[in-house]
Amino acid sequence: MSYPRLFHVAVPGVVHSRSFRCIWLLEEMDVEDFEICMLEPGKPYAAQMRQYGVTQSRKIPTLQIDNLEVRESGVISQVLAERYASSRSMFGIDSERIEVLEWIAMAETCITFRIPLIPSLMQLGKSLSEIRSHVVEPMEHVFRDNVARFESHFEERGSDYLLRSGFSVADTMCGWSLHTFHTWGLMDLDTGASPLTLAYLERLRSRNGFQRAEKYAEVSPGLYRRGCVSVS
Amino acid sequence: MSYPRLFHVAVPGVVHSRSFRCIWLLEEMDVEDFEICMLEPGKPYAAQMRQYGVTQSRKIPTLQIDNLEVRESGVISQVLAERYASSRSMFGIDSERIEVLEWIAMAETCITFRIPLIPSLMQLGKSLSEIRSHVVEPMEHVFRDNVARFESHFEERGSDYLLRSGFSVADTMCGWSLHTFHTWGLMDLDTGASPLTLAYLERLRSRNGFQRAEKYAEVSPGLYRRGCVSVS
Repeated sequence: MSYPRLFHVAVPGVVHSRSFRCIWLLEEMDVEDFEICMLEPGKPYAAQMRQYGVTQSRKIPTLQIDNLEVRESGVISQVLAERYASSRSMFGIDSERIEVLEWIAMAETCITFRIPLIPSLMQLGKSLSEIRSHVVEPMEHVFRDNVARFESHFEERGSDYLLRSGFSVADTMCGWSLHTFHTWGLMDLDTGASPLTLAYLERLRSRNGFQRAEKYAEVSPGLYRRGCVSVS
Repeated sequence: MSYPRLFHVAVPGVVHSRSFRCIWLLEEMDVEDFEICMLEPGKPYAAQMRQYGVTQSRKIPTLQIDNLEVRESGVISQVLAERYASSRSMFGIDSERIEVLEWIAMAETCITFRIPLIPSLMQLGKSLSEIRSHVVEPMEHVFRDNVARFESHFEERGSDYLLRSGFSVADTMCGWSLHTFHTWGLMDLDTGASPLTLAYLERLRSRNGFQRAEKYAEVSPGLYRRGCVSVS
């Protein structure tokens, strides 16, 4: 296989899989030689990916590269950022290394269900009103706290992007999370309480790379090169 | 501050925070010079941590080290493994680098609520039976799939630990997830369907480092040195 190939699925206007983070990153780095394989939503991914030669991975994101299958969007992003570092560094500067790793992890934990709430939900012995007060309301708090963390970061820094040195993989990782959860109303940035985070999200959405990555929601299942060009 | 200080909270027999992963790692590396600060469960962590000089972080795990505050258990583990690499490498061998990063990420994603299910739950317009069929049952599937991923890994590898080269940070990261979710019955390894993963978990639980880390659930809030020795 010559080009790195990334598997993705999207439902237009509703959701992109986490692979969005990696496609966006490739666009920001101006990489030409990659393939995006769009899967059919709602059908098991493992069987679809096997048709394209995937042998191990059963979930997306998956990156095929150098006869390896790499999983987890944060790891794929790191692999891609290192591979194409010569075109443009996306990992910030050396002194920001721990910070960029924190943001990569935070991109997941900021949208993660609070662990101790999961048993309350899964071992359903609760009424609807108990689910509301024991699970849903605490999670609303958690999401608000996570938005507040972004907001206080931008208040202190006054920077346009998460790292001082400029746009980076921290933004492609956290950007997908904020975009998706804001779109769903779960991390609502329109309340007036987080103007800097809202402005940050708008800044991300207006980037060419973001918009080019969004286009993949519009195409049919199949294999594509950069710019949603079908591979026949 | 002289020693790295890690903040943790635990409820005996119920749950350890993710800081458990990092304490366990320190024990496995035979590090002597660290402090564990146990917080009081159920009270806001940020205010408690401020009393110990934390200025930025509002959540646990948090590691104070070299006048930095490091968040996210995977990042803290990486920082600690690098700092104490001379005592014992916990990151596997060079050729396992991508794999160890995948397991660090997988430790979180294997216990993460499936993202598209979250709106169904949070925007409560559903009956209890709809919550069961639209949210709880799909999540039961996800957890079973994640256990199956571990099981097939051990079937293929036949290894005692996640990496071929032996015990590593992959195990301290994923081990906490498996231990916690198995204890809660959410990733039940006793069904007979995942004997290798169950044996793996028992192997982890029998390690000295795991058992020493568990002891912190028994002590009162306050500051401790290795072995739960109170710092007066």
